[in-house]
This record gives sequence, C-alpha cells and structure tokens, in this order.
Amino acid sequence: MTTFGYTLHATSGAARRGTVTTPRGLIQTPAFMPVGTAATVKAMQVRDVAATGAEIILGNTYHLMLRPSAERIARLGGLHRFMGWEGPILTDSGGFQVMSLAKLRRLTEKAVTFQSHIDGSRHELSPERSIEIQNLLGSDIQMQLDECPPFPIAEDASLESLELSLRWAKRSKAAFDHLADDGRALFGIVQGSVYPDQRKRSAEGLMEIGFPGYSVGGLAVGEGQGAMFETLEVTTPLLPRDKPRYLMGVGKPDDLVGAVARGIDMFDCVLPTRSGRHGQAFTWDGPINIKNATYQDDPTPLDPESDCPASRDYAKAYLNHLFRAGEYLAATLLSWHNLAFYQALMQRMRTAIEDDRFEAFAADFLNRYRSSS
Amino acid sequence: MTTFGYTLHATSGAARRGTVTTPRGLIQTPAFMPVGTAATVKAMQVRDVAATGAEIILGNTYHLMLRPSAERIARLGGLHRFMGWEGPILTDSGGFQVMSLAKLRRLTEKAVTFQSHIDGSRHELSPERSIEIQNLLGSDIQMQLDECPPFPIAEDASLESLELSLRWAKRSKAAFDHLADDGRALFGIVQGSVYPDQRKRSAEGLMEIGFPGYSVGGLAVGEGQGAMFETLEVTTPLLPRDKPRYLMGVGKPDDLVGAVARGIDMFDCVLPTRSGRHGQAFTWDGPINIKNATYQDDPTPLDPESDCPASRDYAKAYLNHLFRAGEYLAATLLSWHNLAFYQALMQRMRTAIEDDRFEAFAADFLNRYRSSS
Repeated sequence: MTTFGYTLHATSGAARRGTVTTPRGLIQTPAFMPVGTAATVKAMQVRDVAATGAEIILGNTYHLMLRPSAERIARLGGLHRFMGWEGPILTDSGGFQVMSLAKLRRLTEKAVTFQSHIDGSRHELSPERSIEIQNLLGSDIQMQLDECPPFPIAEDASLESLELSLRWAKRSKAAFDHLADDGRALFGIVQGSVYPDQRKRSAEGLMEIGFPGYSVGGLAVGEGQGAMFETLEVTTPLLPRDKPRYLMGVGKPDDLVGAVARGIDMFDCVLPTRSGRHGQAFTWDGPINIKNATYQDDPTPLDPESDCPASRDYAKAYLNHLFRAGEYLAATLLSWHNLAFYQALMQRMRTAIEDDRFEAFAADFLNRYRSSS
Repeated sequence: MTTFGYTLHATSGAARRGTVTTPRGLIQTPAFMPVGTAATVKAMQVRDVAATGAEIILGNTYHLMLRPSAERIARLGGLHRFMGWEGPILTDSGGFQVMSLAKLRRLTEKAVTFQSHIDGSRHELSPERSIEIQNLLGSDIQMQLDECPPFPIAEDASLESLELSLRWAKRSKAAFDHLADDGRALFGIVQGSVYPDQRKRSAEGLMEIGFPGYSVGGLAVGEGQGAMFETLEVTTPLLPRDKPRYLMGVGKPDDLVGAVARGIDMFDCVLPTRSGRHGQAFTWDGPINIKNATYQDDPTPLDPESDCPASRDYAKAYLNHLFRAGEYLAATLLSWHNLAFYQALMQRMRTAIEDDRFEAFAADFLNRYRSSS
C-alpha cells in the first residue's frame, strides 16, 4: 500500500513544485481541485474532468451526509465508485457549509447541531462524526472539523474560536487514527483570521498534534485579496517545508498565482464551474461574459491553442446561442472550458517554478490577464 | 460529389433493411434520428450522440429560424460546423412547430404568418422561405412545407388541407431545385389523417411531383397506436420501393417496432431525450422511472451489457441521487442512456431483418418490453 506523502522538487522564490503521493495516484502541485459538491462536478462528466488534467477532486461532506447520506454511499462502494472518479478525492469536514447553508445552528464544545437546508431534518456534526463520514465516503485526504468564523471577527472571539478548532483538531486526529485505512491522510486547518499572532498560535498548535498536510482556512471570506496575501505571507513560513499546504476555497486565477507565489500547493474553488454555468469564461486576456451580444456573430473559439474540445471546437457565437436558448450544453461547455483553463494555468505555474522563473511568469500572466479589465 | 440515394438490401415481411447515401455519410436503415432542436441534442455532447451509433440527427427549422436565425448560422459556416456534428442532418420544414408553438398564426395559400413564442416578433414561412432556410442551415435532407392539421379533423377539412400541402409540395420542389447544393434531398410529406383514400390521393400527388424520399406526416398526434398502424398499413404500400420512408415524430420503442414491421425506414422523436430529462429510462424490460425510491440503494446499472458508459458505468442509485439533487448530469446520463437504447433497438431490428426473422424478433421484444407494465 502506497502511503500518503509529499515530495518537494523545486522552488522559485516561495513558490513550490512538488508531488503529493496517494494510493489512488499522484498529484502534481501546485494543484487545482475541481469541486464535486454532490458527487458530481456540476454539469460535467468525470471523464472530461480528468481530461482537463485534474488529478484530484473535492467532495462536500455537508451535502453528501444530507443527500444521499454517507452510509448509503458506503453501502454502494464508496464515493469513488458511486460517481465514477478513480483518482484521489479530498473531502472537507462539513463545518464550513454548516455555517453557510444550514439552519438553526447550535455550537457547543462537543459538536455543532443544525437543520438540513434541504428537508429541515436535524443533524449533529462532531469532530468524530465528521471523520466517520469522511471515511464512509472513502476520502483520500480528509479535513479536521473546525469552526469557520465569519469575517470580520473581533480578536478575542477569533482566538476563542481558534482554540476550539485546535481542540477539535486533536479529537479529529484521534478519530482518524482509529478509523482510517492506510494511505489516507488527515489535514489540520490553520485558523486565526487576519491576526498574525493567532495564525502562529494555530499553526504551532496543529504542528504539535502533527498532520501530514496543513490547510489554510478562514480566508476568501470577504477580507479581500490584499489581506489574504498578507495573511498567507505570515502563515506559510510557519508550516513545515516537507508537507503540502492547501488554501481552502480559493479562488480567482490571479488569487491562485498570488497564493502560489506565497507558498501554497493546493486549491479548490467552485468558481470555474459556477461562473461557467452563468456564462463567464476565463481566458488569458481576462474573464469575458459569453452571453454578451458582442459574441453573437463571433466565429472564433475561446482558445484555439487549447486541447480542450470545449475551448477549441466551438465558436463563441455557438456558446452565446446555447446560453440564450437556455440549453444544458451551455453550462457543460463553459464549465469544461473553465476547468481546462484552470488546469492549464496550474501547468504553466508548475513549469515556471521548475524553470525558476515564477516571478516573471506571474508578472506576465497578471499583466495580460488584467489588461482588458 | 456523392448523390443522395437509397439501397434496399433485404426485407422481412414488410420490414426493410437499407442504406441511405448522402455526401456526409451513410445511414443504415431502419434508422432513428435524435432531435437537435436548437442546434444541440438537449443535455448531450455531439461526440456522445455519435458514439451511441446515431448516423444522422434532426434540426428544427422553426427554432433555428427564430434563434439564432438561419442567416446567422449560414454566416458561421452552416449548422454542421455551428454545432460540431459532421454527419448528415435532416431538417423539418418548420410547419409543425408553427402550428404547435407559435402565436397568432394566419394561414393563406401563399404562406403562414405567425408570432415568435420567444419574443413576439412576426415571421412569414412560405414553402420557398422554408427551403431557403433549410439551405442556409446546410441541411442534407429537407422537408417540404406542409400544413399539419390537428387530430381529429373532419374528412372535408382534411382533404382541403392535403390539397394545399400538395400545392406547397410542388412549390417546395421548385424552390429546392433552384437553391439546393448537389447531394441534398427534399422529401415530400404524405398527409390525409386517418382517411385511407386521402393518404392514397396524397401519396399519388407527391409521386407525380417526384421526390427522392417520402415522409409520413400527420401521425402521432393523438390518434393512438392502433389507428397509426392502420394508417401505415394503407400508406407504405403506396410508396415507391426504392425510396426511403420517414415517419415523422415517432415514437415509443413499441411504436418503432410496429412501424418498421409496416415498412418505415426512418424515425425521429424527442422522447428519449425528453423522457431522460424527466427521469424515465427505457430498458428491454420496459420503461422505469429512476426517481422512484426503489432505486435509492440499487447498485446495478441500467444495462450492464451495453457499451454506453451511461448505461453501464453508473448504479441506478447514483442516477436516482443525481435527479433528487437536481444535477445537470442526471439529464445528461439518462438522455444518453435512452439514445443508446434506441440505437441498440434499431441495430437489433436491422439484424433481425437481415436474418429474415423480424416477426419473431418483434414478438419477443414486445413480450419482454411489456411484461412489467
């Protein structure tokens, strides 16, 4: 059985080029993970997700525990078989979406109880139950349950939340060590909002427990790109060099470039698929809205150089038409294009780090990407 | 340039095994044509439509003339390039959907005028304009404009309508001969409701004009399967043996088997894709509703013997989950499965005709297909 691991191959400034090893396959980092919320990357076939170059996808514990339930997925052979994805899967703990989606939340030292946003049914999510669910799903990279504080949050409230998350980290680790199959990994999550000393306290507390990878949580919640980058700058240097670092829920293409420059290895975000469903296409010259009338007669594809069929084989005029006609294929083709764009961006970043020219790459990318906006 | 043609290879009773030849490829008959209403087979990628075995698809003149317009599609290189389908495309005349979808219709000898159901804009569709549109689209097999009478319709009103459709057939042919590229074909449409002598009058009138193929219209409009089959029995013997026969807008799997038994070569219907979007899956044991709770824990696929990924690679429980979660992929996978089922049915019928055992095949198919209902 392959064990979970991380190998750092090269650096360029603070940017890191590595490989995460899992029993289900390798993940070249920096890596972007498409989000498969409810056991499907929305509007996509897994075959096409894989063809974009994605080596790992993310599943949402909150959504899956409510529907169709972790026990049902386990009976059906686990999440990989259920949705037909053969590579590694990372799951979140469910905590973030309890905070953003569920009703009537009540948080205690023991657990968070809440009502399902789907049918109002009552549920309890403790650190132990979250780990149990993630193992029922068969997740390869699991997250500790943490409290996800809002932004902004006062310093003392943030510290209190952070300490709870550290206690939950310890309980998550104990549950994981008891339950998880060989080769699976549990990540601790660094919290502390935008307070440098709290980020330090959180990182040190987690490292004391010891995890094979560290997530950075509590960002991309409204603090703005500047504050996010400043927080990364004080956080990533605290983390062990020989473990992967995952920035949760980020982000826009320029967020990814800036976060890689600050030592992040892994990302997930609904943006490429959600934007795609709403007609936004990412391009090297910045995002465009394909529904705009200016594309009605445009015979050019989104990216003739891409090897993604959605980017290369259809006129913008066709994509525009599909959106106007309300066709399913509109969402599929634009989600697909955006995922391919994100993977191409990650590939370019990986190459730039290997060549130790990341800073120049980032400047060139941002210059072109922001030129039209 | 290949010219349009039809070769009859074998018969079994009245069932016919043939090949339609077009410049864009061959069509093995009996054939089922998936419907690509608005320049997309709903919820499907063209690559996957082709992989089911479909050799020709249908486009709807009414929808395309309104959005994005025939002139725009022509500027963009024609319908094949626009939607990425390389095989032959058949288009209807637009008449049927003017009758079923448009508002404020007014029919004269010259043309039908109507308001778009999308934006209320006014349009005129004459036999000449319909042919012009179909040629702008680049359609390989075009339909004459006809009047599509309702069912039931009184005998005298039906006769009057039929005579108008014959005059329009003549005008359609003249316009087609003037406009169409080599290798394209125009079909005449037999009308006459459920009145045998009117079907005869219509067929003879069309054959006098002379077409390379004949459609049977005015069926599957509420007359029921018995009346449809009776009408086919008096209609197909009137048509030339060396030309393809296309039954428009049909139908359910058992309709197809019964119509092939009565000498029909080509079909189109929205049923496999529309039903798929609503959770109905066709199987050799009859249709099932995958949304039913009975499938929530069912680990078996819709058809383990199929080489269609949608039929073979996903548990019914997964499909059930996708519908409950309202995921795009639900519509895609079930449309795909249903199209693959329809193509597999056509393949089995073609083989049964080649082996001159169509009657036995039909009996076996219907016995199993209807066993669970």
